[in-house]
Amino acid sequence: MKQHYEVVVIGGGIIGCSIAYYLAKEKVDVALFEKGQIGLMTTSAAAGMLGAHSESNGEDTIFSFARSSQQAYLRLKDELYQLSGIDIGYKEGGILKLVFSDTDKHQLTPLLKQPTAEWLDKEEVKKREPLIAPNILGAAYIKDDVSVIPDQTCESFAKSARALGASIMESNGVYQVEKKDGNYLVRTMHGDVEANYVVFATGVYGNGLFRQIGLDEELIPIKGESLIVHSEQHVLEYTLFHESCYIVPRNNGKLVIGATMIKKDWSDTVSLEGIKFLIEKAKAMIPSAIEWKIDHVQAGLRPGTFDGNPFIGRHPEEERILIACGHYRNGILLAPATGEMIRDFVVGKDINNGWMQTFRVDRRQSIVV
Amino acid sequence: MKQHYEVVVIGGGIIGCSIAYYLAKEKVDVALFEKGQIGLMTTSAAAGMLGAHSESNGEDTIFSFARSSQQAYLRLKDELYQLSGIDIGYKEGGILKLVFSDTDKHQLTPLLKQPTAEWLDKEEVKKREPLIAPNILGAAYIKDDVSVIPDQTCESFAKSARALGASIMESNGVYQVEKKDGNYLVRTMHGDVEANYVVFATGVYGNGLFRQIGLDEELIPIKGESLIVHSEQHVLEYTLFHESCYIVPRNNGKLVIGATMIKKDWSDTVSLEGIKFLIEKAKAMIPSAIEWKIDHVQAGLRPGTFDGNPFIGRHPEEERILIACGHYRNGILLAPATGEMIRDFVVGKDINNGWMQTFRVDRRQSIVV
Amino acid sequence: MKQHYEVVVIGGGIIGCSIAYYLAKEKVDVALFEKGQIGLMTTSAAAGMLGAHSESNGEDTIFSFARSSQQAYLRLKDELYQLSGIDIGYKEGGILKLVFSDTDKHQLTPLLKQPTAEWLDKEEVKKREPLIAPNILGAAYIKDDVSVIPDQTCESFAKSARALGASIMESNGVYQVEKKDGNYLVRTMHGDVEANYVVFATGVYGNGLFRQIGLDEELIPIKGESLIVHSEQHVLEYTLFHESCYIVPRNNGKLVIGATMIKKDWSDTVSLEGIKFLIEKAKAMIPSAIEWKIDHVQAGLRPGTFDGNPFIGRHPEEERILIACGHYRNGILLAPATGEMIRDFVVGKDINNGWMQTFRVDRRQSIVV
Amino acid sequence: MKQHYEVVVIGGGIIGCSIAYYLAKEKVDVALFEKGQIGLMTTSAAAGMLGAHSESNGEDTIFSFARSSQQAYLRLKDELYQLSGIDIGYKEGGILKLVFSDTDKHQLTPLLKQPTAEWLDKEEVKKREPLIAPNILGAAYIKDDVSVIPDQTCESFAKSARALGASIMESNGVYQVEKKDGNYLVRTMHGDVEANYVVFATGVYGNGLFRQIGLDEELIPIKGESLIVHSEQHVLEYTLFHESCYIVPRNNGKLVIGATMIKKDWSDTVSLEGIKFLIEKAKAMIPSAIEWKIDHVQAGLRPGTFDGNPFIGRHPEEERILIACGHYRNGILLAPATGEMIRDFVVGKDINNGWMQTFRVDRRQSIVV
Repeated sequence: MKQHYEVVVIGGGIIGCSIAYYLAKEKVDVALFEKGQIGLMTTSAAAGMLGAHSESNGEDTIFSFARSSQQAYLRLKDELYQLSGIDIGYKEGGILKLVFSDTDKHQLTPLLKQPTAEWLDKEEVKKREPLIAPNILGAAYIKDDVSVIPDQTCESFAKSARALGASIMESNGVYQVEKKDGNYLVRTMHGDVEANYVVFATGVYGNGLFRQIGLDEELIPIKGESLIVHSEQHVLEYTLFHESCYIVPRNNGKLVIGATMIKKDWSDTVSLEGIKFLIEKAKAMIPSAIEWKIDHVQAGLRPGTFDGNPFIGRHPEEERILIACGHYRNGILLAPATGEMIRDFVVGKDINNGWMQTFRVDRRQSIVV
Repeated sequence: MKQHYEVVVIGGGIIGCSIAYYLAKEKVDVALFEKGQIGLMTTSAAAGMLGAHSESNGEDTIFSFARSSQQAYLRLKDELYQLSGIDIGYKEGGILKLVFSDTDKHQLTPLLKQPTAEWLDKEEVKKREPLIAPNILGAAYIKDDVSVIPDQTCESFAKSARALGASIMESNGVYQVEKKDGNYLVRTMHGDVEANYVVFATGVYGNGLFRQIGLDEELIPIKGESLIVHSEQHVLEYTLFHESCYIVPRNNGKLVIGATMIKKDWSDTVSLEGIKFLIEKAKAMIPSAIEWKIDHVQAGLRPGTFDGNPFIGRHPEEERILIACGHYRNGILLAPATGEMIRDFVVGKDINNGWMQTFRVDRRQSIVV
Repeated sequence: MKQHYEVVVIGGGIIGCSIAYYLAKEKVDVALFEKGQIGLMTTSAAAGMLGAHSESNGEDTIFSFARSSQQAYLRLKDELYQLSGIDIGYKEGGILKLVFSDTDKHQLTPLLKQPTAEWLDKEEVKKREPLIAPNILGAAYIKDDVSVIPDQTCESFAKSARALGASIMESNGVYQVEKKDGNYLVRTMHGDVEANYVVFATGVYGNGLFRQIGLDEELIPIKGESLIVHSEQHVLEYTLFHESCYIVPRNNGKLVIGATMIKKDWSDTVSLEGIKFLIEKAKAMIPSAIEWKIDHVQAGLRPGTFDGNPFIGRHPEEERILIACGHYRNGILLAPATGEMIRDFVVGKDINNGWMQTFRVDRRQSIVV
Repeated sequence: MKQHYEVVVIGGGIIGCSIAYYLAKEKVDVALFEKGQIGLMTTSAAAGMLGAHSESNGEDTIFSFARSSQQAYLRLKDELYQLSGIDIGYKEGGILKLVFSDTDKHQLTPLLKQPTAEWLDKEEVKKREPLIAPNILGAAYIKDDVSVIPDQTCESFAKSARALGASIMESNGVYQVEKKDGNYLVRTMHGDVEANYVVFATGVYGNGLFRQIGLDEELIPIKGESLIVHSEQHVLEYTLFHESCYIVPRNNGKLVIGATMIKKDWSDTVSLEGIKFLIEKAKAMIPSAIEWKIDHVQAGLRPGTFDGNPFIGRHPEEERILIACGHYRNGILLAPATGEMIRDFVVGKDINNGWMQTFRVDRRQSIVV
């Protein structure tokens, strides 16, 4: 371990690993510290939908940011494979946002104005997904909302960053960050290092460090449980989505049914209540889902923020402390754009002003005023 | 592997292992052949209730057999520990057969005439199990219906049998049994052996062999799925039982919620339907069960017979071919008594006539006539 | 389940699934019966090397067969993905057959005459794989010996076959095959079906059925244990091979270290001896392998034959009983060519005469004569 | 969660859980905060030897402390079972400290002066453990050094503490402790609570908090890897011990082979190097161990201190901050005595002065002076 790095990234989930990757691509001397293993916490429990349209009505700032990130994956999938030897499991097909009621339909109105979304009537949905529930009324189809396999994608970012010169340190948590001689002293379990920049990519686990560096914001855990299942048959072509639940077919033959949303639960265990809820939701979309076989269950803590948008930007008082936290349930989707944005802060490139304003760390104060 | 044994036992589930144990205790030269690993199929998916009263109204022949077997465990738990170093997880406490309706109550009438069963009113049940559903009306309490941990019990039988001189051979299936010079030729994956007696303890997996030896009976798989869960708290003192579902607290801190009953399904996968059913049943007994955390799921194939009773006895035409199959969901409970009964056939001791008649292999023919 | 199929395939490993796939492509009415789950036994424990050159000196009949099969995968990877939604994990890069001694080098002489093999000297090997052991002398590089992920490939064959109309039945073993009215009666756990053709693709588990149909040959289990490991770094670009051991980097970031060869062991457990041996072999190729982290261990039973070549062809006396067994450690590699060859027997296409003679089931008799 | 507790314990490993138990027994109002799950880190990776003599030559202070703790388990095993329904897996038999050389023998000299230790010659060792390596020279036998199953023991302490009124909170880490109005303010992920006493039972994970409260001492991780294996036979009656490695037979039929000692490694992964080392050590004690089958691997971080003794006592400047950390590889053994000692600090009972002096937190300063 060197004694000085230009940038230290704290946190080895997909956000931190993407940041390390984009910085290493620019030949920035970057080190990432992860207290456990790369991608093992929130990242590994994600479904991996790149749902730019699923999580947005297509009109807000986050949509342009999400679209930019979604498109970055088109290049990344080959780029990362070359550098890391790991396939990110990019699965084409797209998503069907299902409509079972007038309310469902109404909520899709803004989305259906987007050129990337297409309305499919009942017959068309049944033709594409013959196992769909018979009370289906139609669906919005978004071809671009594909999916990846989160843990492989995260590991691929980490190994690619390493291949480009980044230092990626696992089992080495940071417990304190303090100012020292115009730089930052980063205290890790294996010793102290100095850095010109420190990036916090801690997910929900960074609240303690946030307080140390004088940030008022707090990340709120929103636990998500999901089921990994399989079927003897090839049952789904598309990701299905309804009322914040989904079924994602992966290119390894597994299906992911997710996800609950339990506020302020810091555990990563899976309750019988959550399992029952997910089975009922899957059955409502695909009645024969009830016959699918369970492989395992998983849970992760999404990092929520007060307004649902991530914090990406500078510490209000420390220009070279950068925050990249609070991606809620869009961490996989937003990792590339976040990595690019943090890189731009560090290397001094122009950044989209709308994104800067929407994601700035001290926006709550601005709102109050 | 020797070329001749006095007795060959086919099948290394708990029935086969108990038989090998009781024979070895009598210094009979016995070899057991198991195609996979000891206790890994149906046995390991059992809950381990020694429910002599749970599975019977207390008036039939099977009840006296079950009681005899249940009591044998009182001695076995120490005996097996001494020989094998394995604790069978004998858990005292007993069972509550819950009453939520007049029908439930009515069904318990014969059981409550037994001196071993005691009626507990609503208040008493609540006092003993404070988390019970509020609509409880009462329960039959049977102190003697304790539980063991099935895989440990089975392994303990096998290692104890070995310690007493039995040959226990894993990963060595038998594919054919034929007559030879007044004895039996047993053809195994590792070669042929001869035996004076052959005991079939194959569970549901023996139908192919049954046909080879000219037995008309067929074992019917009745798949049972169950959940292994845990709670942060000490939630249950007693096994709870209602409408063929149960929650068994084990002495390793886990709880078993079981079990579905799916006829003619030969798979050992666990479906979402089964899981949902079990969660709903557990919740109906203990509303807060919904908060319990899942550890894993399991399934096993219970071997059913045409009348619900096991086949224990001689082949109708081959005096030294013995059958010990079809214990349905009572394999763990009935293993000791079955082991003793088969031993008695081999060594020529007297056997309870009622048991002989009830469990004889060709009883269907008798019934027809 | 219908009462009649044109072809019944027994066994749902990769050989059986490939056969079902190629038959279904020709619109043959085919049903596959698997006693457990698709691809869960020998197939899932394979490393997935498509080592046409690794397993051959490039001069024998099996080489042309293996090359044909290897090349089929180039088309299959997209074809299967389209039909099944499953990626087979096709990983380019190729293999390095390592040379640490003159003996090693000498053994590669015939292989290096092949146009597909290339000699790399010490420096070149070190350049391509910087972590290689310093006592390396060189390597034969075969670019075409790529790898796939066996369980995903097998499942992809099965689901693709299904999509083309095949019936794939899991948890339904066949216990007897007999002649009936010029056809075959196939007796399964779920009932009897008739077929014009029966294909035995049972791997090592078919010896019992072999005897039933009067085949003298016996498949010999050669157990292979392997380790699935990972490293924090991107450590290998190529599959490494030395003295029948190998390290295969997979495109999901895992490495497979294999494999032991234990004759006549029917168990699928992994012994401490096997693990120790594999760690020592890996260390001899890559000294820093000692730092890799273990994920899990696995074992499978390769089906060996008397001369090392598979049996692919007709039963000597039953023209419409076809055998496709005994692929030893090349099941994944040879699955496509075997599927095509069995298809050709059924639909009456021409078959390469060298392959027919080399793989015919009664070749041992011919040899003796 | 209440706003005030008399005592807050930080850390839900076996030390913290024992402390909560002993305090709850005295009706002290105690809350324990664990950031993850009870007993899941270092505790669950322990072998569970109660090796009072194994870890000591029988002459130092720690020996009397360890013996006291060992004897407490004799009572605890029933007491905890009554309260929690969990069996701690107390396994009698004792330990053999093996002698393969004169050096080995020499090192045992002080131990063999203890009345609890007995010398067994070569023949006697072979008689008791027939599988022992033939080059054995003898062994010290200590009957009292029995073993328990660590995770079950820890969970049993936690549930028993709960049953006696303690609040045990999982998934709720403490990130800061500060003084407030003569009491302590404990800041947890779920909010702040006040306490009259705070006990640090954090194992190696508490270094960050140590600094916050002004403690100079640092806990050093010494990672231990181990293997959980099984054998078809009943292979061992006694725990075997040689050169800091051991084989522990558990009463659930498993054997634990441990353990490596890797300094300053914060990861909990298991390396190929560690596995190889352990297999070689097991083989040196029991040559046929090489045939045992692996179940799984595990690793945990033992908390080391500068002098090898734990810190048990008062913060040098804060009388009501108590430390119970640094139990190295004796956490399971020392948990009861540590719980009793911390209880005595809180309730004001007399404490053995030798223990107080040996374990005091600021002893390094005294030494220096």
